[in-house]
Amino acid sequence: MMSPDEKKKLLECYRDGLLNDTLPFWIPRSVDREYGGFITSLDRDGAILQTDKSVWFQGRFAWMLATLYNTVEKKAEWLELARNGIDFIDRHCFDEDGRMFFSVTREGKPLRKRRYIFSEAFAIIALAAYAIGAHDDERRKQALDLFKRVLHHLDTPGLLPPKTCAETRPMKGLAVPMILLVTAQELRKAVKDPICDQIINRSILEAERDFLKPEFKCVLETVGPQGEFYDTFDGRMVCPGHSIELGWFILEEARLRGKDRRLIELGTKIIDWSFEMGWDREYGGILYHADARGLPCAEYWHDMKFWWPHNEAIIANLLAYQLTGDEKYARRHRQAHDWAYAHFPDPLHGEWFGYLHRDGSVATTLKGNLWKGFFHLPRMQWYCWQRLEEMS
Amino acid sequence: MMSPDEKKKLLECYRDGLLNDTLPFWIPRSVDREYGGFITSLDRDGAILQTDKSVWFQGRFAWMLATLYNTVEKKAEWLELARNGIDFIDRHCFDEDGRMFFSVTREGKPLRKRRYIFSEAFAIIALAAYAIGAHDDERRKQALDLFKRVLHHLDTPGLLPPKTCAETRPMKGLAVPMILLVTAQELRKAVKDPICDQIINRSILEAERDFLKPEFKCVLETVGPQGEFYDTFDGRMVCPGHSIELGWFILEEARLRGKDRRLIELGTKIIDWSFEMGWDREYGGILYHADARGLPCAEYWHDMKFWWPHNEAIIANLLAYQLTGDEKYARRHRQAHDWAYAHFPDPLHGEWFGYLHRDGSVATTLKGNLWKGFFHLPRMQWYCWQRLEEMS
Repeated sequence: MMSPDEKKKLLECYRDGLLNDTLPFWIPRSVDREYGGFITSLDRDGAILQTDKSVWFQGRFAWMLATLYNTVEKKAEWLELARNGIDFIDRHCFDEDGRMFFSVTREGKPLRKRRYIFSEAFAIIALAAYAIGAHDDERRKQALDLFKRVLHHLDTPGLLPPKTCAETRPMKGLAVPMILLVTAQELRKAVKDPICDQIINRSILEAERDFLKPEFKCVLETVGPQGEFYDTFDGRMVCPGHSIELGWFILEEARLRGKDRRLIELGTKIIDWSFEMGWDREYGGILYHADARGLPCAEYWHDMKFWWPHNEAIIANLLAYQLTGDEKYARRHRQAHDWAYAHFPDPLHGEWFGYLHRDGSVATTLKGNLWKGFFHLPRMQWYCWQRLEEMS
Repeated sequence: MMSPDEKKKLLECYRDGLLNDTLPFWIPRSVDREYGGFITSLDRDGAILQTDKSVWFQGRFAWMLATLYNTVEKKAEWLELARNGIDFIDRHCFDEDGRMFFSVTREGKPLRKRRYIFSEAFAIIALAAYAIGAHDDERRKQALDLFKRVLHHLDTPGLLPPKTCAETRPMKGLAVPMILLVTAQELRKAVKDPICDQIINRSILEAERDFLKPEFKCVLETVGPQGEFYDTFDGRMVCPGHSIELGWFILEEARLRGKDRRLIELGTKIIDWSFEMGWDREYGGILYHADARGLPCAEYWHDMKFWWPHNEAIIANLLAYQLTGDEKYARRHRQAHDWAYAHFPDPLHGEWFGYLHRDGSVATTLKGNLWKGFFHLPRMQWYCWQRLEEMS
């Protein structure tokens, strides 16, 4: 079991890491005082590698800062910087059709638009968290309206063209119910609208019914519209870090519903399966991909160790331990924590490397790009700190 | 220098590898006698991993077989199997707008269509090589017509939607002049039409003028319409194996034009730069990506060792040696050959692994997928065998 002393040390590790290492790495470096918004493509020492901006990160960065403002300390700088992201989104990140871009130039001119709704999801959680901090009802409404627009886009055939010819082989991805689940959870903190609980329930049901495969003891990334299993590279693909993340989103819902037993069972089952399939018994750490049938993966970099699956595994096992008291989760939390802290932190310039080879050696020294920035690591540090405070 | 004995051993290595190892790995396993065409997603031992078909490989496979028929031996099976690919292309691989799909199901139903012209390019070279072997003027015409259609699609704004918002940052890729160059070279063997030489000249000029960057001693993958350098991850990206391939396409043109001096200079310069930038001084082998300014690469798997850049490096250095007699190229050919043959061949089931970690260990044991099949390795074995016969 986790002793009080261990809990104290872990709490300090996450809290101090967030406040004294992660935050000062990104701020002020990432903040674009000239054009607004955030630049996340930073080298090991924080030097800018490119100034193109990730739309995801305008929302993610702003969400994390507003959340810290709302839950940690009312530091005016944090709320002001969250607004810096939101203002940039308002001004530059929407296309004329109401959908959002994926990347823009430093000045905010559009570069890429993709066929997904993740830019919108991260904007929604930023708006919701900011609305709470700033007591801003306009932003609340904006967040809810954008959420409804996302649902409209997802539920209206033809608005988001599929990657695969849908007539031949209709497919759907786990990422959609997952992002809807967590977005609705964040939106619900700001907006009392029944749509949040509806979407949360619907998303959990859909994930459980269509993506969980007891015959393989895993959660698939891609299935048919009714959960059909396709025996192809894509159809067999598992991303253990991603499904571990789904597991803790469900456990978080269990926590908020007074330790809901059914949700605890579901969430821990997902975490158990995914940790079992994803943990590398040879080198330690969590493999990026696995094949449900144990066949070779299609992605040649499948066995790399990315930072974020380890963030998710640390959160998921700590939360599972908090909700169940099962020491298996304390042990696995320690296992994931120890491997991650032995391999990812940069002893020279702080923060974490993002991409390691299977054996744990660093594959690239950059600290940020369009996918890595001020999000997964600080979210883990903040969330685990909160849980450990509750547990103390 | 390369001694007669070395030449003889190399010739046997390539010839016997092709005839006794590579060919029997893929044939008959890949041949779909039920639905036609070729299945390339094979496991280490040749077991099928998925039956979805790569449209690229219907053309590539057919081209390689028809080329062997035309240049090695008039084996009826080879021409008949080439026709098996071409028939499948005819029946299943064209969309109603005249463009081709990227992947289809085993039965030939469309799965994916992409915004590029590579499916078409591989179909053209297959048609051209088959036309020669079968003395089939209809196929000659079909190849030329399809080539003209590709040029029309490339040269008509709006027909192939760009990935990046073209108004903000217009970009073009090295792959387009490269594929046009080699496609026109193959088409020219079957069709006497001035368009082949025109496109060959235009493509070499464009590559030299817009993609070669003496200030970085490299060939960029992506530039602006007039060769503008963009100081971003994409703009700085170099793929040494890809530019080495460009180098030998140009040297091949020099060879066919009676050792054209200007083309030899250009091709060897490209090979020198790319080999210098791509060779891994720590572990050996050719790194997949490099950054023109030496900054971290955006692709986290940038330092993996793929099979095909090694195929290209072995061809390029052998051909450079044949054309210049410079022993530097004999040495580099040996260097690339030795590293590749020490790491890629599968001692158990034959053929080559495709994807190694930076240190040369195998990252995935599969032998084929939608990108790896009967193409780069047999092309190297066949082409080097031909060159060594000339040199003997």
